[in-house]
Amino acid sequence: MFDAAGLEVLDRAECLELLKTVPVGRIVFTDQALPAVLPVNYSVWDGSLLIRSGAGGKLAVAIRNAVVAFEVDEIDRDSGKGWSVVVVGRSGVVDHPAELAAAEEAAPRSWVSGRDRLIRIVIGSISGRRVGEVP
Amino acid sequence: MFDAAGLEVLDRAECLELLKTVPVGRIVFTDQALPAVLPVNYSVWDGSLLIRSGAGGKLAVAIRNAVVAFEVDEIDRDSGKGWSVVVVGRSGVVDHPAELAAAEEAAPRSWVSGRDRLIRIVIGSISGRRVGEVP
Repeated sequence: MFDAAGLEVLDRAECLELLKTVPVGRIVFTDQALPAVLPVNYSVWDGSLLIRSGAGGKLAVAIRNAVVAFEVDEIDRDSGKGWSVVVVGRSGVVDHPAELAAAEEAAPRSWVSGRDRLIRIVIGSISGRRVGEVP
Repeated sequence: MFDAAGLEVLDRAECLELLKTVPVGRIVFTDQALPAVLPVNYSVWDGSLLIRSGAGGKLAVAIRNAVVAFEVDEIDRDSGKGWSVVVVGRSGVVDHPAELAAAEEAAPRSWVSGRDRLIRIVIGSISGRRVGEVP
């Protein structure tokens, strides 16, 4: 299936598979009423995306029980060939003792120190596009 | 200078230089009250970012005179080393005859057909971070 712009539309299963192939994505949220975006590493766990955050950081505060988007892509710079997947879902802190151990195991390694909080983005809607050769 | 998370803070000049080195970024906007994000190729022109859009596309409608964010990064998947730059600014269609010719010349080549509209994002705030070796 192709969309109005001529891009191939990926189904949910394809999108989920692609999400597992790249460890870095971008979380999109609202910060003081302005659009905000931040690259983070992540992993896929139990129908959710897991990321790490500091307890008091701007990210942790802004995405506490918020609806956020998460974007992952792999695009060739010269040809534009590649794909992108966007998840929209509700974010929240993983703090239930019954989940924490398993989530800690599944969570990505932090790039920076002090990110000891686990954030889960429950995958609600998911959409993806693939760009082929430009005519 | 380093931020609370230990990331090196880049100044405006560094951010602007880095924006010119990568042709693909992600535009962050609001679509029907939900966060939305889309990878696009772009170029830097006259204090603005230029992207192409279809005249009637979801993107063109959503970012008509809206405040949007634009993210560019280059991050090593394994080490997390790299940088990211985020612009926040007002977007609008470039349609003034006095600007159109020069903007067309500076604009990126479209990856898909039918993107005959030029969108300018005036660079308002710009911020950047560099991630070094994770300790």
